[in-house]
Amino acid sequence: MQDATMRASVMTGVGTLRIEERPVPAPGPHEVLVEVAAVGVCGSDVHYYRHGRIGDFVVEEPMILGHELSGRIAAVGDGVDPERVGQRVAVEPQHPCRRCKQCKAGRYNLCPEMKFYATPPIDGAFCRYVVIDDDFAHAVPDSMSDDAAALLEPLSVAITTMRKAGVVPGSSILIAGAGPIGVICAQAARAFGAARIVVTDLVPSRREKALRFGATEVLDPTAVDVSAIEPVDAFVDATGVPAAVVSGIKAVGPAGTVVLVGMGADEYALPVSHIANLEITVTGVFRYTDTWPAAIHLVNSGAVDLDAMVTGRYDLEHVADALDSDTDPASLKSIVNPS
Amino acid sequence: MQDATMRASVMTGVGTLRIEERPVPAPGPHEVLVEVAAVGVCGSDVHYYRHGRIGDFVVEEPMILGHELSGRIAAVGDGVDPERVGQRVAVEPQHPCRRCKQCKAGRYNLCPEMKFYATPPIDGAFCRYVVIDDDFAHAVPDSMSDDAAALLEPLSVAITTMRKAGVVPGSSILIAGAGPIGVICAQAARAFGAARIVVTDLVPSRREKALRFGATEVLDPTAVDVSAIEPVDAFVDATGVPAAVVSGIKAVGPAGTVVLVGMGADEYALPVSHIANLEITVTGVFRYTDTWPAAIHLVNSGAVDLDAMVTGRYDLEHVADALDSDTDPASLKSIVNPS
Amino acid sequence: MQDATMRASVMTGVGTLRIEERPVPAPGPHEVLVEVAAVGVCGSDVHYYRHGRIGDFVVEEPMILGHELSGRIAAVGDGVDPERVGQRVAVEPQHPCRRCKQCKAGRYNLCPEMKFYATPPIDGAFCRYVVIDDDFAHAVPDSMSDDAAALLEPLSVAITTMRKAGVVPGSSILIAGAGPIGVICAQAARAFGAARIVVTDLVPSRREKALRFGATEVLDPTAVDVSAIEPVDAFVDATGVPAAVVSGIKAVGPAGTVVLVGMGADEYALPVSHIANLEITVTGVFRYTDTWPAAIHLVNSGAVDLDAMVTGRYDLEHVADALDSDTDPASLKSIVNPS
Amino acid sequence: MQDATMRASVMTGVGTLRIEERPVPAPGPHEVLVEVAAVGVCGSDVHYYRHGRIGDFVVEEPMILGHELSGRIAAVGDGVDPERVGQRVAVEPQHPCRRCKQCKAGRYNLCPEMKFYATPPIDGAFCRYVVIDDDFAHAVPDSMSDDAAALLEPLSVAITTMRKAGVVPGSSILIAGAGPIGVICAQAARAFGAARIVVTDLVPSRREKALRFGATEVLDPTAVDVSAIEPVDAFVDATGVPAAVVSGIKAVGPAGTVVLVGMGADEYALPVSHIANLEITVTGVFRYTDTWPAAIHLVNSGAVDLDAMVTGRYDLEHVADALDSDTDPASLKSIVNPS
Repeated sequence: MQDATMRASVMTGVGTLRIEERPVPAPGPHEVLVEVAAVGVCGSDVHYYRHGRIGDFVVEEPMILGHELSGRIAAVGDGVDPERVGQRVAVEPQHPCRRCKQCKAGRYNLCPEMKFYATPPIDGAFCRYVVIDDDFAHAVPDSMSDDAAALLEPLSVAITTMRKAGVVPGSSILIAGAGPIGVICAQAARAFGAARIVVTDLVPSRREKALRFGATEVLDPTAVDVSAIEPVDAFVDATGVPAAVVSGIKAVGPAGTVVLVGMGADEYALPVSHIANLEITVTGVFRYTDTWPAAIHLVNSGAVDLDAMVTGRYDLEHVADALDSDTDPASLKSIVNPS
Repeated sequence: MQDATMRASVMTGVGTLRIEERPVPAPGPHEVLVEVAAVGVCGSDVHYYRHGRIGDFVVEEPMILGHELSGRIAAVGDGVDPERVGQRVAVEPQHPCRRCKQCKAGRYNLCPEMKFYATPPIDGAFCRYVVIDDDFAHAVPDSMSDDAAALLEPLSVAITTMRKAGVVPGSSILIAGAGPIGVICAQAARAFGAARIVVTDLVPSRREKALRFGATEVLDPTAVDVSAIEPVDAFVDATGVPAAVVSGIKAVGPAGTVVLVGMGADEYALPVSHIANLEITVTGVFRYTDTWPAAIHLVNSGAVDLDAMVTGRYDLEHVADALDSDTDPASLKSIVNPS
Repeated sequence: MQDATMRASVMTGVGTLRIEERPVPAPGPHEVLVEVAAVGVCGSDVHYYRHGRIGDFVVEEPMILGHELSGRIAAVGDGVDPERVGQRVAVEPQHPCRRCKQCKAGRYNLCPEMKFYATPPIDGAFCRYVVIDDDFAHAVPDSMSDDAAALLEPLSVAITTMRKAGVVPGSSILIAGAGPIGVICAQAARAFGAARIVVTDLVPSRREKALRFGATEVLDPTAVDVSAIEPVDAFVDATGVPAAVVSGIKAVGPAGTVVLVGMGADEYALPVSHIANLEITVTGVFRYTDTWPAAIHLVNSGAVDLDAMVTGRYDLEHVADALDSDTDPASLKSIVNPS
Repeated sequence: MQDATMRASVMTGVGTLRIEERPVPAPGPHEVLVEVAAVGVCGSDVHYYRHGRIGDFVVEEPMILGHELSGRIAAVGDGVDPERVGQRVAVEPQHPCRRCKQCKAGRYNLCPEMKFYATPPIDGAFCRYVVIDDDFAHAVPDSMSDDAAALLEPLSVAITTMRKAGVVPGSSILIAGAGPIGVICAQAARAFGAARIVVTDLVPSRREKALRFGATEVLDPTAVDVSAIEPVDAFVDATGVPAAVVSGIKAVGPAGTVVLVGMGADEYALPVSHIANLEITVTGVFRYTDTWPAAIHLVNSGAVDLDAMVTGRYDLEHVADALDSDTDPASLKSIVNPS
């Protein structure tokens, strides 16, 4: 029998969190109720916590943060196989309309009606229970830890990045930034078969992490002119820093690809002549479609190691500490365990 | 019997041209000698003439301008069917190495060893005779005028643009700029099946030209917020003006495409958040591969009208006038007839 | 106020139809009720009528045929803009689940849960009213006739065929069969910019029709060795006849494409060596996704003429005559007007 | 100083080989002379040896077989960096024209003017020296054995197969046949990230080999209905046996891919309805373009093990034994060492 209420860590304003008792949500048709096991802390959670907004998305009401999560199915709604109760799952935290042009074209990540966890005004997962459409609750094997299952979400970002970057066996790739996204992209690049994986970061300890997680080469961008390295097939920015983006783009060879993953200013200068003269394509990543099965395989086969990225673990009472952990350069990925 | 020398209009310095007597070039193996019939004036010819350089390409020695051309095969080199002598041809003015990675990948336009007409230090076509590889001298039907055959070159730019923009029947496209490239892109967009073709230009008479050549709608960007129009599938910039590029990119909808054709500053600010959040792809056009057969068909079938774009005709003695004709807003495309 | 019942032409067995009074369906959430104006007769309707089955799909209960249709919105279900009542629409006759892997990948035509008009056991449109999801009722301009709006359905098949065949400006294409699908494919090929459109048919009057509707060349396959023509970029089979498929595939050049549209035997011999040695790709067309907007534009712009394909018009009492009209070689496309 | 003549194993008729003294070829412009170190025996060599022909290619004059090879550059022609002398290389045994439509489109493997080693009338590599264009002599790292460097050629076939099959991380693939090509395809599938790799073969020892080299599952097609397995994303035929091809195609799910690599009859029955109804694409592999760099990376990184596939080694006097070794089911890949 389900509890009627649950504890949740609610962001009540910029820089403030409060534990509240909230009603346990009821799964509607085609939905499942998931008891949350692990939630990864993402840069966007931190950004909402510190600034109250990301671009046009503004936190105007109390909201629960957290969108990288795993758990166990506690109940199912109409139309869902009751056998799923008890199943361990990784949650793909999006709820597209399934009816618009983007959804019907296979780009449900771009659905203008999207309801996405921890994007205002939709609550996230720093709480005991969440609901999600049953087809977005992906069963995970017993061999996979709760932490790894939660981190399939940032791995999905990295998989989408590799797809858009066109990384295939033999590719060369430059990744700017060795934070969580840069490191997971380096792992994904290796798993996709990249032969040369160059990662840049200002911080020596982060460069070492990149080497441990797939980089074949690391560079200090203050010591080396990144734009002058041997040209790469693809450049991925995981910093959002204009100078890193510009030098990275200039390092891309003819017909190469640029994928912007890092969040930064709305507008900044790009080397347009280099892009045009070399017919480079520049694009960005906005979430993902159909990545969990591939992500599960990559972790399952050992090609990607998510557990080794976890550097801190927190309970619901210490979400603030989890959100602040990014100021420690030794921290890579923090996990909240709400149960 | 071939003449030993020929007259050529040679750019001897910034803003200076001189008629010189030059040796008629001899076609080598797999090359043909073409007696030039018509040469279109391109913005890049004008730019070299006025500024002596485009980016890293600097005119350091006297050079013949002109690279949009048609003519008649006057002689053939070894390995070329002698029956081709007398054939009317449109010249694809590039000479790739055919051996490098780009060439072997089908992107010979990006060959780093490329020798391109009227790009320093390679001479162009404001002269009586030129040589070109035989497979880059494309036979044209008798029904096609010399002018139209010359203008297959800018049409090739437009075809490449449409390919990169992904224009297919039913597409919507925004084109910034109603100069020669904007107008020919509007024609190509219509021929590729675009349903909605919006063209912006500051000058009323140019907007009228755009309507005549395929636009379904024209806008004055000083009167209308271009970024707020109903979103388009693709945006093509034919201005090189940063403000036009920014508002054009913002008019592109989810998963849309941006193709930068206009030459402008090396570096300027783009709306990076809009690109990333909507997963728009941004790229440029640098010449073309395998466009002449399609271009010939589009003109032949009446889908594109190149003759109607010609607004002035000059002989070799008046190349300077041809190059200066772009200052007249009534001018669209000037042709030089060297013979 | 809606009628409670409606007249329908019901297939009650192989070769038998009966007018029945049926309840008018009620539009559910996100559905609209359409008063049917015109219904095209398709080869699959004829096949069900004569044989009671197509492959694994068997007509086991009385069923209404007809799936190419236009009409006017008579009522709307919950969640649909009530302003749509009265709107003239073309119906895309499919009802995918929107939740499965194929739907989420943008291939809703391949949804294994698909409910498709006039495919057992789903009723079709030879009746006064039908319901359809609101996003599959496509508004058509007033300038478009009811007949043309109905025939956007076979045009959608042709558009899908051109997309899969990779037809772009300048392409060459061979089409086997000048029946309704062959002719509409020829029109679509021309609209997509094909330069060379070769159509084969055994019947001289059909070859003439093909010439009228876009073919640049027609061939009698009993008089000419089709496999020996100048190689084409793409071959479309609209016959289902093995001999036509084999010779057509052999006419395709290196890296070309084959699209099988015609229905025929489940299994037959293909020229596998030719396919492998030339790296030809062979595929088929099973309905369509996202074609109505493009189809509407092609008709609206005059690039495709659907009205001129109509050769017969029947009321509900004469559906049998409409279904039998294909035995008349002068017949191209028959329309049933149920209201 | 180069020798003037060399020993070669020449096929003088069906089933007959003779050691002959032949002139050492001289490298022309852009060519290199390679002293052959190792040559893999391919099924096509065996086929020419036993039958004197493959399809339209007929051995009419004495010819040297062998086209999977590695060696060391012994001399260079004009236009080649003399520093390359002494370099260890893997040879891509093709000589395209570089000028035709296919070459310029990046499909040099489909060049109609192709001169390919050991395809009549072009000599192959069962001899001391060969010449090849310098850009088709790919430098290999010292860590790579001569055998592995030779077997980059069949690995190139497998890489092309994976590219055409669309194998990406998470894919499922069925491979029919666990001979050399099937096994190397299984290895490539694993390296490309396939999650499920099913291999079928009649022979138990071959199925065991497949498991050792990447298969996640093996099936005996006489014991299991291959067409009824859980549908796969891609099917690769490495048998050329019609029954295997048919059941394999039927095992492919919606929008899946079929790649025919095995050589068999020119024409045989395929399940056309299944292909059309599921919009499966069927194609073949004819050699390769731009695969050696990726192949070198896959071997270098340990993702693919070529040395472990070598089961026999022969000198020039025993080429006949090498060609006959395929009758031994324990044999997987035989190598000839001509020097």
